[in-house]
Formats: sequence, C-alpha cells, structure tokens
Amino acid sequence: MGPNEFFAPVADELKIVESSLENNINTTLAVLQDASTHLIKAGGKRLRPAFALLAARVFVDELEDIIPLAVALELTHMATLVHDDVIDDSKTRRGTDTVKRLWGNRLSINAGNFIFSRSLALVAAYQRCDMISILADTSMKICEGEIIQMLSAYNTEVGLKNYLRRIERKTALLISVSCQLGALLTPASNREVTAFQKYGYYLGMAFQVTDDILDFVATEEVLGKPTGSDVRQGIITLPTIYALRFSPHRQELHQWLSSPEECTQRADTILDLVIDAGGIDYAYYAAQYYAEKAKRQLQFLPRTQITENLGNMADFISIRDY
Amino acid sequence: MGPNEFFAPVADELKIVESSLENNINTTLAVLQDASTHLIKAGGKRLRPAFALLAARVFVDELEDIIPLAVALELTHMATLVHDDVIDDSKTRRGTDTVKRLWGNRLSINAGNFIFSRSLALVAAYQRCDMISILADTSMKICEGEIIQMLSAYNTEVGLKNYLRRIERKTALLISVSCQLGALLTPASNREVTAFQKYGYYLGMAFQVTDDILDFVATEEVLGKPTGSDVRQGIITLPTIYALRFSPHRQELHQWLSSPEECTQRADTILDLVIDAGGIDYAYYAAQYYAEKAKRQLQFLPRTQITENLGNMADFISIRDY
Repeated sequence: MGPNEFFAPVADELKIVESSLENNINTTLAVLQDASTHLIKAGGKRLRPAFALLAARVFVDELEDIIPLAVALELTHMATLVHDDVIDDSKTRRGTDTVKRLWGNRLSINAGNFIFSRSLALVAAYQRCDMISILADTSMKICEGEIIQMLSAYNTEVGLKNYLRRIERKTALLISVSCQLGALLTPASNREVTAFQKYGYYLGMAFQVTDDILDFVATEEVLGKPTGSDVRQGIITLPTIYALRFSPHRQELHQWLSSPEECTQRADTILDLVIDAGGIDYAYYAAQYYAEKAKRQLQFLPRTQITENLGNMADFISIRDY
Repeated sequence: MGPNEFFAPVADELKIVESSLENNINTTLAVLQDASTHLIKAGGKRLRPAFALLAARVFVDELEDIIPLAVALELTHMATLVHDDVIDDSKTRRGTDTVKRLWGNRLSINAGNFIFSRSLALVAAYQRCDMISILADTSMKICEGEIIQMLSAYNTEVGLKNYLRRIERKTALLISVSCQLGALLTPASNREVTAFQKYGYYLGMAFQVTDDILDFVATEEVLGKPTGSDVRQGIITLPTIYALRFSPHRQELHQWLSSPEECTQRADTILDLVIDAGGIDYAYYAAQYYAEKAKRQLQFLPRTQITENLGNMADFISIRDY
C-alpha cells in the first residue's frame, strides 16, 4: 500500500486542488507567474492538502469548502521551499531546476513572498481570524526552526532535543495545522479538533524522521536530490546524532562533521559509518514511537474508514521499506 | 515645519508604537531577536504608523485600539526592507549596517518572514478578516512592484506608466492602506474611509517622487546611503526618464544607463546631466500634482485640526527644500 492509496478517499478533491494551485497564482507579470508556477508543475505529494481534506472528511461528506484551505496550505509550504532554495543555493528540487537556479535571488524571494501572501488571501476569505492567527503563529515558528537549523549546522554537540525542535518546526507543525484547520471547518468538537492537531503533529514528526533516514539510504532517483544531502550540508539528523555517540569511529565523525570541507569530501564514508553504527535502526524506532503516538490520538475520533486509513498511514510511514 | 510637527497630534501614541515595535519581536532565539530588532533600533520616520494614527484621530480621541495596527504596518514595511537588502546586497540602511551584511542571507530572509508573520498575528487579533485580505492583497502587489523594478533596471525605454506602477507598489499602496485601516477601525463612514485610502495613495505617490528626487540632490548624510544610489543600480526614476527624452546628451544617457558598468563608473556625470536637463524640476511638478490630488480628498473628511495638518503635509512633501 502506498501513499496514493491512503489518499484515495479524497482523490477527486486532490485533483481539484492540483488544478486550483496554478489558477491561484494569478499575476499579469509573466516572469512572476512562470517562477511561481514552476514549483507547482514539478508536482509533489500534496501531503498538507491531503491531510486537511482527510481530517474534514471524517466529519463531512462535501469538501468543496475545504478546497481553498487545502490550496492555501500547499502554497504556504511551497513559499518556504522557494525561500529555502535561495538560502541553500540549491540547484534541484523534485527532480527539476529550482526557481533560484532559473530566475535568481530577487525573483525567488519575491515569488516566495507572493505565494505566501496569496495563501493568506485564500484563508482570509473564510472570515475566520482564528485560522489566520494559527497560520501566522506557525509561520513564525517555521522561521525559528530554520534559524535553529542554521545554528546547529556542523555542530556535533547537538542532541536529541535540538533535533526534535528542528523537525517539529520544519515539518510537524504545518502537517499538524493542516489536520487541525481541516477539522476546524467542520462540526467537529473542540476535543476532536485537538486530537487531529496532535495526530498531525506526531505523524509529521514520524514523517520527518523517516525522511531524514531516506537521505541516508534512498537513491538519488527516489529522493530527487543526491543521497546524503544533509550530511553534505552539515545538517546533523537523528541517525548521525546516534552514530556520533555510539559509533566506534565517533572521534573521526566528530572531526569530519564539524568541518564543511570534510562533510563534502567524505560524505560517502560518513554515510557508511552512520549506517554501520546502527543510526538508521535507532531512527526507525523513533519514527515508530511517533507513529504510535499519532495512532493513539485516533481513539478520540469517530471510527470511520478514514480514521482506520489514518492509522494505517502512520504504520506505513514508520515501517522500513528498504 | 518638518515632519515631526505634522505628527505632533499623535506624538504620544508614536512613542508607544516605538517601544511596542521591539516588544513585539519576541523570540527565544537570541540571534533572530537581534537581527529582527536591529533595523527597528536604527530608527525611521514611522510614516505608516503615523498615518494610521492620524487617520483614526480624525474620528476618535482614544487611539489605544489603533496601536497594534500601527505597529503591524511598520513591521510589514520593515519585513520588505530586510528582504530588499538581501536582494540588493545592500551594505547600509538608515546609516547603519544592514541585517544582510551583519547576519547574511539565511538569517535575513527568515527574519523578514518572521517579522511579516508577526505583523499578521497582530492584525489577526482584531478579528477583522477584511483587514487581513487588504494586507495580503497589498503584499502581493508589493512583490509585483519589486519584479517590475527588476525587469525595468537598465532599461532606458521605460516610460512614465512603468515608473508610476513601480512607485505605487513600492510606497503608495502601503501608505494608502495605513490611512485606510486607521480610519476603518473608527466609526468613519465608507466614503470617509475611501477618501483616506485615496489621500494616502496620492500622498504616497508624491512622497516617493520626492524621495527619488532626493536621491539626486541630497547628501549622503541626509539619505543614509550614497547620493545617486538609484542611478548606480540602474533604477530609472522620474528625473532620469525626463532627461532620457529631453537632455541634449540623451544619446550618451541611453548608452550609459543601459550598462551596469557605466552606471557605476559614470554615476556622478549622469546625475549632473539629469539635473542639467531639468529632470528635477519636472519631477517636482509631478510631486506637486499628486500632493494636490491628495489634498482634494480631504474635502470628503471632517474639517479638523488633523485634516488641515494632513493638507499642510501634502504641501510640505512636494515643496523643494534645496
């Protein structure tokens, strides 16, 4: 079973989201239009829209009212990706050139701001300022997460707490908000909305841990970027944190991972040492731990085909497929 | 009479805004706090807060409720400045180092996003989604303006229309929104809110034309950046557009202004030629034209000390002080 099957109950709505994404970038400036839609056209899993739609579907059948939110969530996510690619000077994303590479800094920064403002306009149309507050708050925390990641690069002393704070802000919060807001637009009770918020949070944590594992073990083809990108950029993720403590080669790892040159030159060796140390196995346990916590929230939600599906998704994310 | 005197009726409130600006940047990350407050500490005219407060004061005495809006408007403006300095790789602003120079791209882009999100949170607290829609819409247009400026750099074929569209988005819209939202939070009628929106728009146009003039004729000390920054960056403003048409040296001007190298090397000569051609005088007439249009909107507003003041400000902005 793959992610597409979990999203099957909202497949029709996801198609509408897909076409709405591009339609919502609506500027008379051709170059801004091209740059803003470039990343959309590159595709993506549309996780955030899918979660908003699935959360709502637990409580209502008709999802027309959820579509603009779903679009806004994906646009918010994309705005951060466009800015990330400027910051990291990335050349490729999702198997195609980045906006930054094709159009440069000025256009990329403005395109990111434009896309984010567009998503705000979409959410504002709901006339629910609580949704804007949640989104603004999340956006601030995402910025903080970026800074924490910056401060933590090449720092081999960072521990589990620092890592969890980073992935919370990088991934978990926006998935959490997607679930939360999707449910908020339905007659769900406060308790149910909170359960969905927590489900999304824990699932997002599991998802990012797994994503960080894949950076070690998946091929460039699967990733859409080179294997070991994190190590090359000095980003210390969970498998590395483990290896830095327990690898028989931890001394070399400390030395290499704190040097930008060594991280680039010895990336392949570092990957091997982290895997040999058991860093991947350890991280899989962490992913399973968070997936389990996500599943536990489902008990506060109505028992439907969708919630069962959400439980299966948690299992799927945290089970190794290598 | 200087700008401070025009703002005298809201001087006390502006002091509260000043201290609130820093208090509203509230992150546990020291480096983000420092970067975000750096620009605040450099000071500034606080035009946008002042306009929001003045517009409200025409209709109500107590401005406590307007303060968060005033703070949000200045933060929105600052967020664009922080990003601008990344884009332009600027070294100084308001007589001090830029965030970009002191902390680099990654922090600057995130600090800009953080500050903008903070301003959204402030506006969302009003529980008026129409205000968020206006702000989101304005933000999109500001992005478009940046792109138009980018596309127009070193392009000596740009005309008046292109210039007006650029300065509208760069300056006039946010001043317009400041006046509009300040009035919107009071019992002002729709007609009065619209009059304030238009007043702010035209005043903002006059203000930016004057600012573009000052880039030719004011000293580095007054500007906080070198005289002729626009010419050096290939930004074609109103005095230059005039000179490109009517200077006896227009051929050389076309040639030089379309070349980044010549713009840098011959900046002083270009400045002299534009001034000699009468570009400054022409631009002053444009500033006066917009100031007059601004003043004309005041007839739809109650006659108070404040509206008289706003009329005087329009005169002041468009009168040459060299």
